[in-house]
Amino acid sequence: MKLALEKGFYFPSCEIYADAPAGFWEYGPTGLKIKNKLVDLWRKEIVRRDGMLEIDGCQIMSKSVFEASGHLGNFTDPIVKCTGCGSTFRADRLVSESIGKDIPERTPNDDLDAIIGRNNIRCPSCKGQFGRTTRFNMMFKVEIGPSAEMAFLRPETCQTIFVDFPRVYKTMRGKLPLGVAQLGKSFRNEIAPRQSLLRLREFYQAEVEVFCNPHRLNDLPRFEEVTDTLLRISKDGASTQEVTAGDALSRGILPNKLVAYYLALLNDFYGKTGIDMHRIRFRQLGDEERAFYASIAFDFEVETSIGWLELVACNYRSDHDLKGHSMVSKENLEVIDPSDQSKVLPHVFELSMGIDRSIYAILEHSYFEDFEHDDRVVLKLQPYLAPVLVGILPLVNKDGLSERSQMIYSDLKREFDSYYDDSGSIGRRYRRLEQIGVPFAITVDKVTLQDDSVTVRQRDTMKQERIKVNDLKKYLRESLQNR
Amino acid sequence: MKLALEKGFYFPSCEIYADAPAGFWEYGPTGLKIKNKLVDLWRKEIVRRDGMLEIDGCQIMSKSVFEASGHLGNFTDPIVKCTGCGSTFRADRLVSESIGKDIPERTPNDDLDAIIGRNNIRCPSCKGQFGRTTRFNMMFKVEIGPSAEMAFLRPETCQTIFVDFPRVYKTMRGKLPLGVAQLGKSFRNEIAPRQSLLRLREFYQAEVEVFCNPHRLNDLPRFEEVTDTLLRISKDGASTQEVTAGDALSRGILPNKLVAYYLALLNDFYGKTGIDMHRIRFRQLGDEERAFYASIAFDFEVETSIGWLELVACNYRSDHDLKGHSMVSKENLEVIDPSDQSKVLPHVFELSMGIDRSIYAILEHSYFEDFEHDDRVVLKLQPYLAPVLVGILPLVNKDGLSERSQMIYSDLKREFDSYYDDSGSIGRRYRRLEQIGVPFAITVDKVTLQDDSVTVRQRDTMKQERIKVNDLKKYLRESLQNR
Repeated sequence: MKLALEKGFYFPSCEIYADAPAGFWEYGPTGLKIKNKLVDLWRKEIVRRDGMLEIDGCQIMSKSVFEASGHLGNFTDPIVKCTGCGSTFRADRLVSESIGKDIPERTPNDDLDAIIGRNNIRCPSCKGQFGRTTRFNMMFKVEIGPSAEMAFLRPETCQTIFVDFPRVYKTMRGKLPLGVAQLGKSFRNEIAPRQSLLRLREFYQAEVEVFCNPHRLNDLPRFEEVTDTLLRISKDGASTQEVTAGDALSRGILPNKLVAYYLALLNDFYGKTGIDMHRIRFRQLGDEERAFYASIAFDFEVETSIGWLELVACNYRSDHDLKGHSMVSKENLEVIDPSDQSKVLPHVFELSMGIDRSIYAILEHSYFEDFEHDDRVVLKLQPYLAPVLVGILPLVNKDGLSERSQMIYSDLKREFDSYYDDSGSIGRRYRRLEQIGVPFAITVDKVTLQDDSVTVRQRDTMKQERIKVNDLKKYLRESLQNR
Repeated sequence: MKLALEKGFYFPSCEIYADAPAGFWEYGPTGLKIKNKLVDLWRKEIVRRDGMLEIDGCQIMSKSVFEASGHLGNFTDPIVKCTGCGSTFRADRLVSESIGKDIPERTPNDDLDAIIGRNNIRCPSCKGQFGRTTRFNMMFKVEIGPSAEMAFLRPETCQTIFVDFPRVYKTMRGKLPLGVAQLGKSFRNEIAPRQSLLRLREFYQAEVEVFCNPHRLNDLPRFEEVTDTLLRISKDGASTQEVTAGDALSRGILPNKLVAYYLALLNDFYGKTGIDMHRIRFRQLGDEERAFYASIAFDFEVETSIGWLELVACNYRSDHDLKGHSMVSKENLEVIDPSDQSKVLPHVFELSMGIDRSIYAILEHSYFEDFEHDDRVVLKLQPYLAPVLVGILPLVNKDGLSERSQMIYSDLKREFDSYYDDSGSIGRRYRRLEQIGVPFAITVDKVTLQDDSVTVRQRDTMKQERIKVNDLKKYLRESLQNR
């Protein structure tokens, strides 16, 4: 967190103001570069690899959309208000913490009231008594135009995809299964946002909705590409087994080829982010944990210092959404499946990825304190995710070294994220680069002026090698290839 | 518009619903590619070229922010409501259209009422009488948390930049002048949104705020890079003169090097978008036209079928924003200018670019109907802005041509936006590609199987040449270089 605040990764929104609301964070220049590169990797390894279509829709959507999706009725948190001081709490969390046992957020209000009464749970602030549990809708309402038409900020980006699906399928000559992807912001009016990027009120999602024919979930030739992909799957949250996608399918651990294929795609993607793939799992959710729209659900989770963290919700939403939108809009949303010319209301399997949480997990898994070398802090980011790829450092600011360094910098910065630094000792400059994960440091010294070579220092090994200036671009380009 | 709707460029949000609010549009797969590539070009030609810092902040901001910025008090439109049918209108527009003369939106309410009375202007819907003119604040309000704390969706992205400036300047070791950039959404509750992408309630801005020392506006060595850049400047909106940035400065047409330099940067950027640079102008705004925060203002305008269209507002905002935020937050927002160690509250010059409008203008300037050739519709987009760079077409679906085409497609799509199409006559397939601006069509024919060459057809000239499959990547890569 200290590094994040001091080095331009992320920081609280409106922080100069006392009335800055909690749960809003900004990406600084360093964090934004990582975010943009992570999105690029997602586009390459998921969207383009699978031939998905990507769209970009509005965040404010009409009330009907959320009637149809069920969010108006179901997207609520239970809250209790203290009759003494007026403080409001999430009832399920308050109860869970008070009695030391996890209570699901979907526990009925009456049951929550009963537990509060039985255990005489009082307000943590003033010891006052609580009123009855009520439901708080987590969507932000907005009023449009002078007539104040009611609309909402979307609580998940995918509703855009569902509503746009008919036009996209038709105009882009779609074939099932068809993945439609979107990167964008979603908004949830959390009662108690916390932990910087982990529970935000305004956050980035990269969502993929795969529209499919429910009768052909095993008709997917491209599954062959991933048969041997190793997946770590946990059915109960306690034990995790490592199986290939093919085995998981034949042993009934995963329900069909479509689900298995997209989990494998996701697994491959995260394998390239630098997250330690020994500390991940696909955890299947039980009935009480699943979102109201999901019939099968796996969470892609990563182990962090604060426990297992959900990065992606993989939900089989069946026809929940298209059926809802079809009923409320009175539009027929069935399409023709060209493979057998049948008319079908597609089902949906989704990969709903939290971008902010993913960045947090990548940063945590990349963070090392190197006690053998000066207690240096190193972010071991993949070169293609690093905010800056290369630092250019004149060894000293004389003898024309600055000028030569500036020339190299000007040339490299057109193609690579580059950083010029000539202030402080060379050791301090290395430290500054390592802290933000810069993989390569180029030092320009007197030898450079003689034979046009520079030293290239690798962040992780601290090894240095001499390379000709003319070969730098090739060297850096190769570092950007995915493993 | 027909092309936009039918080919996945853009379309109305929530269109399956009757209660879909006006002024919200989505990018389909074709439009989104263009948008992302335009943003990349902006990053390259403006942000990176000038060494700016880019951030990405929240859209919901606290109430204090807009007290300080003046939007709570000043960001209003005059409206009148019909006492008969209740319809609401923008008073300035209603009056302008009724009396056939442009009335500025900042005309006082009483003056508007007087004109309405004097001209006996009645409701266009029911001929009823109007009530008095009132002010409608164009910000969308949102309520945060169970206590419903008041906040707003930002009406311009730059407020994020101002509020984040102290931390960014400090942690990123800033030096004046420093450009801080942001791409993101802004929200304005327009009374009468219209013309698809041109007046939206939710829209993309790419804004640059250049923080500068007001005493050193002519201390800018990099101005030399743009001395000879030709600018088309209009002081009165009627006549436009073409002058170099250097001449504009020495003749007092532009006020200082800083303003001249950034206008030139913007000019260079648009020169690469494919917009016809003979149909643009920087128009200096008069006192009544300028936004409430601007002391000098130029609009970058493009001539389109519906008249001159503002794409970028270039405002010298002086210390309006930092002074406001400093007063309301009670934080000292002065910084040290390292060039002379003086303490200064920076002034700001901004380039506030509308992304959606820019896309509209680029599309319109790229659109050609070619009556000499089959009335073909061609979008002459620059290769680096085209949604798809290359189409791969087997001449016929037999003799192994499909298989060979698929191989080429699989290889190219990893690096380039590629499209495979084997349905319909080759002529129809060319037409489909030209309509969405695909610069190159590769046809695989029998000769391909013999000598591994394909024909590459250029969209604009329709010329074809045979190229070896092995040389395709090099050919395509070169096409992506900016002119």
